Amino acid sequence: MKAARWYKAGDIRVEDVPECQIDEDYDVKVKLHWCGICGSDLHEYLMGPIFIPVGEPHLVTGEAAPVIMGHEFSGEVVEVGPNVTNVKPGDRVVVEPIVCDDTCPSCKAGNPNLCQNLGFHGLAGKGGGFAEYTTFRHKFVHKIPDTLPYDKAALVEPISVGYHSLEAGDFKPGMTAVVAGAGTIGLATIESLKAMGAAKVIVVQRKSVRQEYAKNSGADVLIDPADGDVAEAIRAATDGYGADIAFECTGAEACFHQLLDGVHTGGTVVITSIWEKPVTLDLNDVCIPEKKVVGSICYCGDDFDDVIRLMDEGKIPANGFITKKVALDDIVSEGFETLTGPEKKKQVKILVSANPDELGA
Amino acid sequence: MKAARWYKAGDIRVEDVPECQIDEDYDVKVKLHWCGICGSDLHEYLMGPIFIPVGEPHLVTGEAAPVIMGHEFSGEVVEVGPNVTNVKPGDRVVVEPIVCDDTCPSCKAGNPNLCQNLGFHGLAGKGGGFAEYTTFRHKFVHKIPDTLPYDKAALVEPISVGYHSLEAGDFKPGMTAVVAGAGTIGLATIESLKAMGAAKVIVVQRKSVRQEYAKNSGADVLIDPADGDVAEAIRAATDGYGADIAFECTGAEACFHQLLDGVHTGGTVVITSIWEKPVTLDLNDVCIPEKKVVGSICYCGDDFDDVIRLMDEGKIPANGFITKKVALDDIVSEGFETLTGPEKKKQVKILVSANPDELGA
Repeated sequence: MKAARWYKAGDIRVEDVPECQIDEDYDVKVKLHWCGICGSDLHEYLMGPIFIPVGEPHLVTGEAAPVIMGHEFSGEVVEVGPNVTNVKPGDRVVVEPIVCDDTCPSCKAGNPNLCQNLGFHGLAGKGGGFAEYTTFRHKFVHKIPDTLPYDKAALVEPISVGYHSLEAGDFKPGMTAVVAGAGTIGLATIESLKAMGAAKVIVVQRKSVRQEYAKNSGADVLIDPADGDVAEAIRAATDGYGADIAFECTGAEACFHQLLDGVHTGGTVVITSIWEKPVTLDLNDVCIPEKKVVGSICYCGDDFDDVIRLMDEGKIPANGFITKKVALDDIVSEGFETLTGPEKKKQVKILVSANPDELGA
Repeated sequence: MKAARWYKAGDIRVEDVPECQIDEDYDVKVKLHWCGICGSDLHEYLMGPIFIPVGEPHLVTGEAAPVIMGHEFSGEVVEVGPNVTNVKPGDRVVVEPIVCDDTCPSCKAGNPNLCQNLGFHGLAGKGGGFAEYTTFRHKFVHKIPDTLPYDKAALVEPISVGYHSLEAGDFKPGMTAVVAGAGTIGLATIESLKAMGAAKVIVVQRKSVRQEYAKNSGADVLIDPADGDVAEAIRAATDGYGADIAFECTGAEACFHQLLDGVHTGGTVVITSIWEKPVTLDLNDVCIPEKKVVGSICYCGDDFDDVIRLMDEGKIPANGFITKKVALDDIVSEGFETLTGPEKKKQVKILVSANPDELGA
């Protein structure tokens, strides 16, 4: 089958590889329809390896680079192992691309996203979404309704990242919330906040088409950091008090400090972003106003099924998230290069497919 | 009356001042028995002003330095304003020394410790515990049982700081916990954890008499950072997994990083300590393992009454916390100088009194 494999930074090749087969662990085979290019894929392309095992095989998959990439995908079940009962051939599905070993206390407690050997399908080896087929463990495979098209379904994974961050921050309906950054995860967070009953969603985003995307996703207030003190602007939008909760989706230090300042005493800053360098933090700014800085990674529990339902009901419309669709053959020139080139700010999500049904071939 | 007043760093004077009088706001007058010297008092003595208003009057008290110090005190009510119903003359009491304006959303929500204009009695002006009398608002005055002696009652305030930090970190019975630093707040946290049902309390403390104090307070495991990697030692004490929650009571950057590393994925580090300089933090260490860094300040709600009950029942015994008692006249030479001199590590809490009943005069 055809697949895009990562060899090293700057070197992703579309090539013929053996078609993946179900086995004891990877017991559902999916014919792929669409797979999105994620920010972490870009990190691997620009400066990897980060999550991809090189030389040493991955503890769970036993594989190392070259690995098939892609973890935000939708498809149709074409074959299942003898003990699989939750899905059957013909089912339309998405997959939680979590690679874990089921043995650590976090996995046993139902939080595979907190596995001590956490890896990702499409980065850790043993298949991925930039291919014609992939196989995966049935417990991570979720059915989608016929009313949710395959292209939108490929957004379930990144939207679940934003949705899960509300739980990580203990968000409650009626709260005032700030989201910094209107990329895919920021937009997913905005739409999740609106769906879950935020009283007001304030978005910090420099002037660009992304401000329009944020508005389309439901932003009530837009703050451009170039216009002055962001924390003051947040307080001005919250009766002078500060926001209840803020979501850091940029990975920029200045933004982190603005959010920490902009939530009120007792407030929470959720970190959903990945960081290229450390920040400098005065812990008195956490201790004395009794604020919280909490991490959020992936999704767990009912996150995927909740997001599938909310998208299907139109409560998370995710309109405008998909800005481009490309064939697998063009993934580097039309996908990775577009997302790292001069027009990258205009893009939100680029979807990739090798499926003739989707490409109209 | 006699009182110890802060003039500037290194300059605390015991002098005669007008006896404080009740007024509308400060409507309970207390004859003081014992008042502890707090770490924040030492900070003001060594390098203040930090919380003490100098030049500009405090927003709530309207006063500035020189101010009477002392906020960890016990005493007897001698006079009350006409509208006071919760205490009467003759009652034995302790006081939550919180100065706030009651108008901000945090105060209205019952969290005066999160007041946007938070100040402290004994630092912000309008009286304090290093004196013969003080006056305070009745809503912050708590009765103590006859079975709780005045000297131990002066520990209710610092113990409530440790007790509150469990709530701030969302501690649950059965958790494994780490406490870094066996000073007053660290010991208070250890005893609160034992009283509230921690499965195991691991204490990080360099070899010194403070290790003995930690053992007396109930530490199950002692880790000396000089003996090697603290996070590894924490994991070794928790079946290889890491602790559920950790309490930073030292203000040392190395310790903060050890605790963040030593809690398992999804775990919490509570910051109870005050910091002299910023730390460097890789936020990936918060985001990817979905950890929480949460601040804790003071106490609120039922904290004081809970601690009074737990101390009275012997569940928080606080034996050995009081290492020295001195007369108010000697507060600088025998109190502040002892706590900042070569023997400071041996001291936990030094209590001060101007009351002849307590001094045996």
